[in-house]
Amino acid sequence: MAAVGRDGSIFARARMGTPKGASPSDFLAALGSLADKCRGSIGSEKKIVGIAVAVPATFNAAEGILTKLPNLPSLDGMNLKVGLSAKFALPVTVENDATAAAIGENWRGASRGIDTSILVTLGTGVGGGLIINGKPLRGIDGTAGEIGHICVEPLGHPCGCGSRGCVEQYASATAIVRMAGELQAGLPLSEQAGQKWQTALQVYEAGMSGNELAVSAFERMGFYLGIALADLVNVLNPEMIVIGGGVSAGWELFADHVSAEVRKRAFREPAERVKIIRAELGDDAGILGAARTAFGD
Amino acid sequence: MAAVGRDGSIFARARMGTPKGASPSDFLAALGSLADKCRGSIGSEKKIVGIAVAVPATFNAAEGILTKLPNLPSLDGMNLKVGLSAKFALPVTVENDATAAAIGENWRGASRGIDTSILVTLGTGVGGGLIINGKPLRGIDGTAGEIGHICVEPLGHPCGCGSRGCVEQYASATAIVRMAGELQAGLPLSEQAGQKWQTALQVYEAGMSGNELAVSAFERMGFYLGIALADLVNVLNPEMIVIGGGVSAGWELFADHVSAEVRKRAFREPAERVKIIRAELGDDAGILGAARTAFGD
Repeated sequence: MAAVGRDGSIFARARMGTPKGASPSDFLAALGSLADKCRGSIGSEKKIVGIAVAVPATFNAAEGILTKLPNLPSLDGMNLKVGLSAKFALPVTVENDATAAAIGENWRGASRGIDTSILVTLGTGVGGGLIINGKPLRGIDGTAGEIGHICVEPLGHPCGCGSRGCVEQYASATAIVRMAGELQAGLPLSEQAGQKWQTALQVYEAGMSGNELAVSAFERMGFYLGIALADLVNVLNPEMIVIGGGVSAGWELFADHVSAEVRKRAFREPAERVKIIRAELGDDAGILGAARTAFGD
Repeated sequence: MAAVGRDGSIFARARMGTPKGASPSDFLAALGSLADKCRGSIGSEKKIVGIAVAVPATFNAAEGILTKLPNLPSLDGMNLKVGLSAKFALPVTVENDATAAAIGENWRGASRGIDTSILVTLGTGVGGGLIINGKPLRGIDGTAGEIGHICVEPLGHPCGCGSRGCVEQYASATAIVRMAGELQAGLPLSEQAGQKWQTALQVYEAGMSGNELAVSAFERMGFYLGIALADLVNVLNPEMIVIGGGVSAGWELFADHVSAEVRKRAFREPAERVKIIRAELGDDAGILGAARTAFGD
């Protein structure tokens, strides 16, 4: 949680672990204690005008009801908006976390001043948010922006969403570790020793030290991510695509492959137009984007 | 060309073959004679408030300059907007033809009253137009909506655009004929006789008469079109996808496969939400959509 000013300054922060299995009322109480901490640090001369939440969930935008929280199933069906307004007596806005991050990067980060941009977050999964003509595109059910589930291999790796070959299965941290393993399995047994990478960071570090197999895993990742981004370039003709999330730290090993694939596959004019760059705000993107919606800008 | 009223009524029509190789001034003269015919049929009591053109081209929206006209290369670089205003002394609007068709279907056709919809046109190629929150999405260079160039098979059939495996290579009229031929080539020679289909209509008619191979070609088409539409459902969460163009006449042979693939691949909520239906306006969609933009609505 953070106390954010109208200009995007962050005055105070408070943090807690994800309360797995918490009931809605436990969850509200926990948010309350975080809010007290934030309020305590900013002093009394600053007026709080609203509460904004970015949730890793689909939510009914009008009513603020959370659904599909793979990581917080005990809150499924909770009316977060009503619960928070009752607790704090303040206006409440709720936003999907990936959309909030896209708004945040558009407000204070990499896509400042850009009218039409796409944020792609590469983490355990692959998420995204769209800013179209200066406004977030949420879709009719609030589920728009599921860039991670663009299909890049029709009969490819099974995805948690029920489909196959989603780009999440080739460009997430999980996918990089899996693909490195698949490449390893193709080596003679004598060369496989000592390469059991457990995290995408380990694959990245091996790649930066010159390990060809790790480099190939990121090349494969860049190939597939490039296909998905070329689709977006052809369909949406955006000015900018911003790449964030933990895996974006591997930029040196995948960015050139992504750009090459986009240039190869997308129409020339929009492919030359689109800037593909790294996100700037890290974890603050979601906090700032949520705050921006609370200010109603 | 047509004379269109504020309510979408079509008062008069005039038609000519595409003037291949015409210079910009020949082309303006030809449009002038069509306009004279239309004006003649509607009489003098109706006031003409503007001229709208839907072009099979990318164009610079602010200046009205045409670029990339694969079928009318002699007009490349023409400033259609300035040329027409000078000739007719009327305000001129220029719109991409697929976007115009999407606006037309949204105004008077299948997606009337729908806020967020996508038009997919299946013809010699595959085109498309997006209506997002009631407004056409043109993109920063006017090239948005290239739905036909969503990749559905990463190392698939080479596409005229320079990429491989674009959905246009699996869902256009051309593609249906090719895929039927590919399936035929897999049959024993004795069974191949007499099945050299030259047009998608012939494949369709064979399918409707129970020819299994023709049925399979449309099943394959539906599989790949479904993948592309599932991508759009996941990314844009639209209320409706409207399918038009000549190939949409084959609806009975592909629509169920498209819907099945969308349900299998897209997230449940947006997949259940999206209505996938046939376009209603045929060739009038582009005319009506262009007219709508001229009325400034």
